[in-house]
Amino acid sequence: MEKPVELILPDIENPIFIEGYPGIGLVGHIAANFLTKELNMNMIGYIESSFLPPISLILDGKPNPPLRFYGKNNIIVAVADIYTPPTLVNEIAREITAYLKHNNAKRVISLGGMGIGFFKEHMEVWGVGGSEEENKDLENIGVKILKYGSIMGMSGKLLWEASKEKLKVYTLLGETFGDRPDPGAAANVIEVLKKLIPIEVSTEPLLKEAQIIEEQLRKMHEKMESARKRAEKEYESVYL
Amino acid sequence: MEKPVELILPDIENPIFIEGYPGIGLVGHIAANFLTKELNMNMIGYIESSFLPPISLILDGKPNPPLRFYGKNNIIVAVADIYTPPTLVNEIAREITAYLKHNNAKRVISLGGMGIGFFKEHMEVWGVGGSEEENKDLENIGVKILKYGSIMGMSGKLLWEASKEKLKVYTLLGETFGDRPDPGAAANVIEVLKKLIPIEVSTEPLLKEAQIIEEQLRKMHEKMESARKRAEKEYESVYL
Amino acid sequence: MEKPVELILPDIENPIFIEGYPGIGLVGHIAANFLTKELNMNMIGYIESSFLPPISLILDGKPNPPLRFYGKNNIIVAVADIYTPPTLVNEIAREITAYLKHNNAKRVISLGGMGIGFFKEHMEVWGVGGSEEENKDLENIGVKILKYGSIMGMSGKLLWEASKEKLKVYTLLGETFGDRPDPGAAANVIEVLKKLIPIEVSTEPLLKEAQIIEEQLRKMHEKMESARKRAEKEYESVYL
Amino acid sequence: MEKPVELILPDIENPIFIEGYPGIGLVGHIAANFLTKELNMNMIGYIESSFLPPISLILDGKPNPPLRFYGKNNIIVAVADIYTPPTLVNEIAREITAYLKHNNAKRVISLGGMGIGFFKEHMEVWGVGGSEEENKDLENIGVKILKYGSIMGMSGKLLWEASKEKLKVYTLLGETFGDRPDPGAAANVIEVLKKLIPIEVSTEPLLKEAQIIEEQLRKMHEKMESARKRAEKEYESVYL
Amino acid sequence: MEKPVELILPDIENPIFIEGYPGIGLVGHIAANFLTKELNMNMIGYIESSFLPPISLILDGKPNPPLRFYGKNNIIVAVADIYTPPTLVNEIAREITAYLKHNNAKRVISLGGMGIGFFKEHMEVWGVGGSEEENKDLENIGVKILKYGSIMGMSGKLLWEASKEKLKVYTLLGETFGDRPDPGAAANVIEVLKKLIPIEVSTEPLLKEAQIIEEQLRKMHEKMESARKRAEKEYESVYL
Repeated sequence: MEKPVELILPDIENPIFIEGYPGIGLVGHIAANFLTKELNMNMIGYIESSFLPPISLILDGKPNPPLRFYGKNNIIVAVADIYTPPTLVNEIAREITAYLKHNNAKRVISLGGMGIGFFKEHMEVWGVGGSEEENKDLENIGVKILKYGSIMGMSGKLLWEASKEKLKVYTLLGETFGDRPDPGAAANVIEVLKKLIPIEVSTEPLLKEAQIIEEQLRKMHEKMESARKRAEKEYESVYL
Repeated sequence: MEKPVELILPDIENPIFIEGYPGIGLVGHIAANFLTKELNMNMIGYIESSFLPPISLILDGKPNPPLRFYGKNNIIVAVADIYTPPTLVNEIAREITAYLKHNNAKRVISLGGMGIGFFKEHMEVWGVGGSEEENKDLENIGVKILKYGSIMGMSGKLLWEASKEKLKVYTLLGETFGDRPDPGAAANVIEVLKKLIPIEVSTEPLLKEAQIIEEQLRKMHEKMESARKRAEKEYESVYL
Repeated sequence: MEKPVELILPDIENPIFIEGYPGIGLVGHIAANFLTKELNMNMIGYIESSFLPPISLILDGKPNPPLRFYGKNNIIVAVADIYTPPTLVNEIAREITAYLKHNNAKRVISLGGMGIGFFKEHMEVWGVGGSEEENKDLENIGVKILKYGSIMGMSGKLLWEASKEKLKVYTLLGETFGDRPDPGAAANVIEVLKKLIPIEVSTEPLLKEAQIIEEQLRKMHEKMESARKRAEKEYESVYL
Repeated sequence: MEKPVELILPDIENPIFIEGYPGIGLVGHIAANFLTKELNMNMIGYIESSFLPPISLILDGKPNPPLRFYGKNNIIVAVADIYTPPTLVNEIAREITAYLKHNNAKRVISLGGMGIGFFKEHMEVWGVGGSEEENKDLENIGVKILKYGSIMGMSGKLLWEASKEKLKVYTLLGETFGDRPDPGAAANVIEVLKKLIPIEVSTEPLLKEAQIIEEQLRKMHEKMESARKRAEKEYESVYL
Repeated sequence: MEKPVELILPDIENPIFIEGYPGIGLVGHIAANFLTKELNMNMIGYIESSFLPPISLILDGKPNPPLRFYGKNNIIVAVADIYTPPTLVNEIAREITAYLKHNNAKRVISLGGMGIGFFKEHMEVWGVGGSEEENKDLENIGVKILKYGSIMGMSGKLLWEASKEKLKVYTLLGETFGDRPDPGAAANVIEVLKKLIPIEVSTEPLLKEAQIIEEQLRKMHEKMESARKRAEKEYESVYL
């Protein structure tokens, strides 16, 4: 293996690519995993790299690599169960963008959270696209456009790389308190996603499941959240 | 030497490969070492790498490299007396899998522990295979299937790499309290292993020896355990 | 991509190059960003490197890479929204200098701050050029020449690299208290810059805007400042 | 220089190679240095590597590299005045073994200490060879064989590498309290060495000198010892 | 640029090379800088390396690289305004030695300090050469020969590398208290240097200037000294 990162993923024509790597409130992580289950998607690929930690995720009694792709029809969902080091994120984003360019991706959509530090009755979903055109798409479905700010990690890198290649790329960010995993924000993001791409999925189970599993997941989630914070500090030290 | 890791191991046809690198409760480490002694196996190979610490293990008055392979007939047992850095684990797992593929391995079995944090009368052994087929093998011999979870280190990586190559691969995890070395859990794992592959070995000596050597080994084991915890933290920081 | 750093920037003949990477008091950063807005400049290029953190800056609803170039006519302004690791600064300075040499740059001007640790009625602007000739240019417009001192980061490196190539290169350093972002110092630096190159821009908006946005920016700026200090420590440990 | 480590050492046929790199109680270090002086050996070679610290040892008014070889007739003694990083130890051991193989070394002997944590009237010398045959040689001269344990650093690595090449290799470990430099243990090791190879040297001067210089050397030795402990911790974290 | 370090220095036949990189008491640094000024030397070269920090030293209103060479007739003086990482010191020493060999250097002289930890009326200058011959030169001019000890950093490395190439090489070490910059020790070293090579310079100005500038330099020097100590610790951890 010559490249630091290799994409093991069959060519799919005109894919709709959805990325949900872990970030603030685990919003993207929860939303993406929910989609793969509700849409009955299969694992169709993964990221190969010596620089990822040696770990297998056991899901439904089968081993899985930590960075995976799920697919159904022309929809591809990218999920991750670990935090990826910054340099590797750059390499992965580049490989994914090359893949999407090569296969004439229809849409590239990152799901994530935006920490607001307080609660309010109606938590909104913000969005930003790679160009004016995508922003109009977002406005047409009632999404507030993020005018100024910064997007870190895979979502930020993918937004820029894909926009350079003139792919239609969007980042959707669900408002979330920011100090805990937030399935509600994930549901909000998916509701917006449903207006953007032709998927049919009810977020009811997500909300219900959220309440049921919240108790069991709390410990795991807290661990996830603290891992995220440690990772976030890494970014903070370089970001102004 | 061009590769970061080199496998010095003679070709053995249709091997049964058993891995017992150190992990939680040192279950795999104890079980694998016990097997090599009880089955009168000889050291037949080792891992060569500049990135391993310079150390010789003196066993029965002879020097040994820290990562070794023991063999008898078509059985190969891999043991380690040091913790291996994550990147190296990836490289080693890849080299081992290539070897096993090349020699048409019959079975690849990782032995390890599963920390449960409490004691109970009957500590069980969980298992998970690389595919539905191996899980059925495990169920047929009464092993509970691990449906959801994560397996770190060599066992986790080997499970995934070998399953990619369609090898028959299994991970056996003996329940253990988790804060101390556990020869009892090792015995439980070996009892399951005996149903899976044609070896004849009584775990009685292990249990007896366990009690006899426990006192002498306590200090060494505590050192081992604290080393394991330090290593584990490394994983925690990347795992969600 | 073979080089650690790649300059994505179209050839512009006889450019006037202005650099405003973040440094003490964020003087260069504020001044350069102000120029790009007041002169209605467009983003025309950026730095590509796997060693930069994965981040997109959202400006006016569009994604931007963290190290960017803005252009209008023959003026190029280089801005950065992150602190760049020292080794990368060396590589970037070298690539920029090669570009400027190749395009026969008319002038290369770094904007920055000089921490003085106290306040006084008239905060001055110091300057230093790559040779006697540039120092005379500076003296002619009333700039005090920095005779002894050290200039760290991109400004320092660019000054040396460009002077080696016999380009006309200047560093302008606005006096600033040094423990906070200082739009006033940025305005002072721009007033000097206006005497050096043919730009028309009023610093009034900068000063006004400074007061308006100061409140909103304080938090972001404090974060920036503390990041700068952490980065500065890195330098201190190597500088005598 | 292409290799990370280069051996600058003239070919000597059928050499007897003695290694005394610093380790517990500085036993090997003291013994090897004593031999070079008592046998009037000359510096005949050294290790060249960019990864060693830039330092000259001034001995008898002349500069010396930190890792050196002394020679007389067919005896070569390897000494070190610094602690060598683990990866470099691996490379050096490999280069030395290749040299010894190429020159048909008669014997390869590492000198070191074994920390026992208490004092007793007769501090013994333990030994272990690369194979049964060397162990018999050791038993014939009354050396207790180390059956189980671990040998870290250059001695451990050399024992394994040389044994792989079927060279006759021995490690001699003098019992020592372990928290201080121990010229007495060094004398004990040399007394055993005299039975193994044809050298004539009285350890009387060593013991006398030990007492005379002990006072002056105490400070330097304490510094050495604490450096050793720091280095040892590095190993501990990887060794079980 | 392929090599990690490049020497930008015109060929000068039979040069006398004087090195004064920063070390204990900044003795070499002060002495070398004094020489360049008193002898009206010009900057004639510098070290190019991506691994040096990005910094320009402004001297007399002009930018300078941190590691520089000054020249006049056949005298070359090497000065540094930063501490250089150990691995880079090795590379630089090798490049300098190759240059000196190629140009048949007449003499290679390192200037530095020797910390003694107390004050006495007559602070001496110690010396050591690359061979018996140079030591005789030193004795002839009344310099005490350093018989045993260690010389770290550029002086130590250069002494060894140059002696390997049979160049006439000397290290002069002025006794100094060791916890502060010491222009007096620098003057002492220069007085010895005057006996060794044909330069005419009065150290009176150095001593006077020392007193005048001491007050202004104190802060800068203290910063320098504490940087040196931090750097020194790096060595300590590897030196016995």
